[in-house]
Formats: sequence, structure tokens, C-alpha cells
Amino acid sequence: MIAVDWGTSSLRLYRLADDGQVRERRRSDQGVLACDGRFGDVLAREIAGWDDGDVLLCGMVGGRGGWHEMPYLPCPAGNHALALGMQRFQPPGFDGRALWLVPGLRDSDSDRVPDVMRGEETQLAALLDVLTAGTHLVCLPGTHSKWVTVRDGQVRRIATAMTGELYALLRQHSILGRLMPAGDVRFDGYAFDAGLKRSEDAGGLLHHLFGVRTTGLFQQFAEPALPSYLSGLLIGHELRASGLFSHAPRPAQVHLIGNDRLLASYAHALTTLGVGVQRHPEDLAARGLHALWARRMSAATT
Amino acid sequence: MIAVDWGTSSLRLYRLADDGQVRERRRSDQGVLACDGRFGDVLAREIAGWDDGDVLLCGMVGGRGGWHEMPYLPCPAGNHALALGMQRFQPPGFDGRALWLVPGLRDSDSDRVPDVMRGEETQLAALLDVLTAGTHLVCLPGTHSKWVTVRDGQVRRIATAMTGELYALLRQHSILGRLMPAGDVRFDGYAFDAGLKRSEDAGGLLHHLFGVRTTGLFQQFAEPALPSYLSGLLIGHELRASGLFSHAPRPAQVHLIGNDRLLASYAHALTTLGVGVQRHPEDLAARGLHALWARRMSAATT
Repeated sequence: MIAVDWGTSSLRLYRLADDGQVRERRRSDQGVLACDGRFGDVLAREIAGWDDGDVLLCGMVGGRGGWHEMPYLPCPAGNHALALGMQRFQPPGFDGRALWLVPGLRDSDSDRVPDVMRGEETQLAALLDVLTAGTHLVCLPGTHSKWVTVRDGQVRRIATAMTGELYALLRQHSILGRLMPAGDVRFDGYAFDAGLKRSEDAGGLLHHLFGVRTTGLFQQFAEPALPSYLSGLLIGHELRASGLFSHAPRPAQVHLIGNDRLLASYAHALTTLGVGVQRHPEDLAARGLHALWARRMSAATT
Repeated sequence: MIAVDWGTSSLRLYRLADDGQVRERRRSDQGVLACDGRFGDVLAREIAGWDDGDVLLCGMVGGRGGWHEMPYLPCPAGNHALALGMQRFQPPGFDGRALWLVPGLRDSDSDRVPDVMRGEETQLAALLDVLTAGTHLVCLPGTHSKWVTVRDGQVRRIATAMTGELYALLRQHSILGRLMPAGDVRFDGYAFDAGLKRSEDAGGLLHHLFGVRTTGLFQQFAEPALPSYLSGLLIGHELRASGLFSHAPRPAQVHLIGNDRLLASYAHALTTLGVGVQRHPEDLAARGLHALWARRMSAATT
């Protein structure tokens, strides 16, 4: 089968053996926003040479503005509901193949405002079957960081923080960004820790952000260190507001899913705050799609 | 005398009688960022026809990247220190006139990170002489909202919140902005109040921001109402983190200085939260410059 993780800004494709092992992988920058509605053309080109019949897709490709809008399933939901919620669709040009889309998840109960995920549920699907019974806290850092509470194999609570998007906005468009060197800079652990520490002070995020400016103005950090300070500050605010430290009992560890660079920052912040972490690789989506496919196929034959 | 309030994005000029009455006013969009370093040319053009000898300037024109960098005076500081801290400077082309710049203020004691103002100290100067003894809380909403504690005529504490800048960034560049109509929209009081109310929930600002998206996604508010919801949410976070509600005793009222539109939102938010307000007009800077000039002149002659 072919597993496709098609997000807003990237497209990842995996050719899987029947047992779920990755045989080949491809990657493209033709995310949902970049491919300008030509989803069929892009997919056909990217899977050229792979003759597998089943193509499973997850991510924003199934969202509003994507190829085919899928509903959000209500929480609590686990792999059974996700597998049954998958929908087959048959766009022109894919005769002889079966395309499937995974639904997103919606949590309307934990908070006064609903929260959602689309794409991350498939990474979680790879974990849900192997986590022990009981409660687990999972964090998927990113443009929109997802904090997920899993209990007994079911996603119970979703809370999203716009941390990554705000970091990028402030770097690119704000008065704070003007103090910083353009482009990538080396991670500065000392400045990151200072930002993390700052997040515990009174005054709130809107005030602490202005402090990034005065910190630069009075040269408490050199300009190349300011992005790390800002990152520590934002991640600190995310962690402290996540409910992690008000859980009783406090979870002994947080499961982290994402790319190595981002996970390094979050793992460092969490361990600094006394919380253990367990890291999982970003391409969990391939395993999740396989798990859902296998469950769907076995449900169909029983 | 001529009073000039020269900020980042606007330039306001007042011709004052000896008793401080405004005789004429002019306004230009040649803010510090717009005038490309040609400060002398811009000023000469804007004051053409006004033959007064004294020209007092405040605002970012005296900041880094402005015409002539002035130091920040340390808090506590009142009108006496501000008047004595004014510096005369004599750029070419202004023979026969005396140009003066007002210093900014720096608060390095109230918080672990220093805070500053430049321009707002002059608006405050108009208030400092008339406020009664005791403690007063002043808020100057804007791109960077200033929260100022005044005690016995001295500025004691400065705390800045990047509320206005963040609102503009999110409207123009974020995924939230994409859900909203471009340009100005009518203020929606119901949505503003919902955002204000939301700010008291657990979860933190980074999480509440994502809720603006789901609120739009599930059509809890129509798209033209979302900017008001976002505004209420951000102002709510600013107010709750300002320390206003942890002051003991809580101040009976907050002095608000700024433009009518912004003040209407802040006044509404504060009164909703049970705090009285007293409004002061934006052009307080003209009165403040006159007060500092009068004090400086009388200090010179005694």
C-alpha cells in the first residue's frame, strides 16, 4: 500500500510492505497550499512507478480547501472509530487504485471552544495500539502544537497552541524580528533557558514579548541569541498553560512526536521543568496509516 | 512655542500660546520610519510659516534610529527630572530656533527585564502635575500598550504589552487573518465580549488564539465578527496580566490616554470587568511639552 501524509506545507509518501515496513519513501514541497488545487496531478506524479492498489491519505488534503473535505469525528475516538471513519473516494485518473482518506478529530467537550486536529490523528494511531491502559499525555509540537490526552486507547482531549506560527510571525514581521539576524541562527541554549525561565514570571505573554525588545535594546543578549530567547519564552508559555503542571497526579512523562530539531527544544524544556519525555519519530504517520488500513481491511472481512 | 510629537508612524505638530493653549495644529504621516532619515527637511517643511523660536520634540525621533538619540532616564522620575533631562540640539538649517528633545524613561526595578517608554512620558507629563497625591494607574493603549503606575507625581513602574502589534500581525499574516475579511470591519460588541470572556479561561493565550480559528471553522461567529472577537481576547489577556486585579487595594479607576476608537474598546473592557475609567485625549503630548518647557524655563531663571 501507499501511505501519504499530505499537510499544509509538505507532502510525504511511503511505499509499505504488507507488514507495514517502509520499502521506499519520497518527499515533496507540494503541500496543500502549494499545489494550487491540482491534487490529482501532483499525486499521480509523486507515486509514479509504485503500482500498489491502495492509497491512504491523511492531513490537510482532507480539510476545507483540500482535495476532498472529510468530517471531524467526535472525541473520544480511537483506532476503531478512525478506521471505520475512513472514506474511499475515486477521483478521475486513478482507475485500478483505491484511494482512502482519514477523518480528523474534534474535541467539543473539554473546553468552551472546540478544538480539532487533522493529520496528527494518524501519527497518534501508530501509538494508540501500543500505549498501555491508563492516561498518557502526547505533545506534537509544530506550527500548531497539539496537546493530546489519551486514555485507554482513546483520544479524549485536544488542545492546540499556535506557538510555531506565532514564532514565525514575530521573526518575520514584528519589531522583534527587526532586532534579529535574518534566516536560521545557531541555537543558543543559555538564551533559550532564560526565555523559558522568563515565562514563569508575572505579566503575561504580551508583556514578556516586549521584553524581548528591551533585552535586545540593553544588550542582555547579542542579536543572534534573541531567536533562541524568543523560542524559549514561547515554548515556556505553551508548557505552563498546557495543564501539564496542574494535572493530578502530574504525568511522569510526555510523549513527543515530531522532527528532531523541534523535539530537541521541547525535550530540553520539559526535562528542565522536571518532566520526562519519550520521543517518537515524525514518520509515525506511515505506521498509523498502515494500522488503520489493516484494521479497516480486517473489519471488512469479518 | 512649537510642540512636536514625532512617533514611529505619525508626526503631530502644535503651535502653542505662552499659556499652553493650542493655536494651530498640523498632522503628517511622516513618522520616523517614513521620513527616511531626512528629519531636518521634514520638520522645516512642516513648521513653515510658524516663526516661534522654541521647538520641543518628543517620541521616537529621540530614539535609536531617530534624529538624535536621547538617553532613558531611570524611574522613579517626574516632571522635574524630565524637564532637566531635556537636551537642546542645533541641527543645521534651524538658525534662530532652539530645538529641544525630551528623554525617554526606563524602569529597571519593577521586573527582571527592564521596560521603557519614549513619547508616552510626555503625555504623562500633562497628567503628573494635576493628579492628586497617592497612587494612580494609567494605561496608554496602542501598538505597544503602556501600563504606568504613578505615585506622588513620579512614574514608578512601566509595563508594556505588545497587544496592538500582535493584533495587526495576526490580522495581516496569520492563518486567523485568512478567515477574516480584509480591511476595517464594523466593531461587533457581542463578539468582543465573547473574546474578553474567553481570556479568563485556562489554557493560555497561545491556545486561545487557535480557538479563534475553530470559532470561525464551526461558525460560532460570522467572519466579519472575528476581528472583534480577536480584539476582545487580546485586550482581555492584557488586562488580566496587567496586575490590575492583583493590586491591593484594587485601583478604583484607570486613567486611559489615547485615540477615541481604541479608548472605547479599553473603556468597555475595563468597565465590564468592574473597573472605572477616566479618559484623556491623545493630544495630551502638546500640553505635556508645554508643561516641561515652562518648568525648564523657570528652572533656568531661578
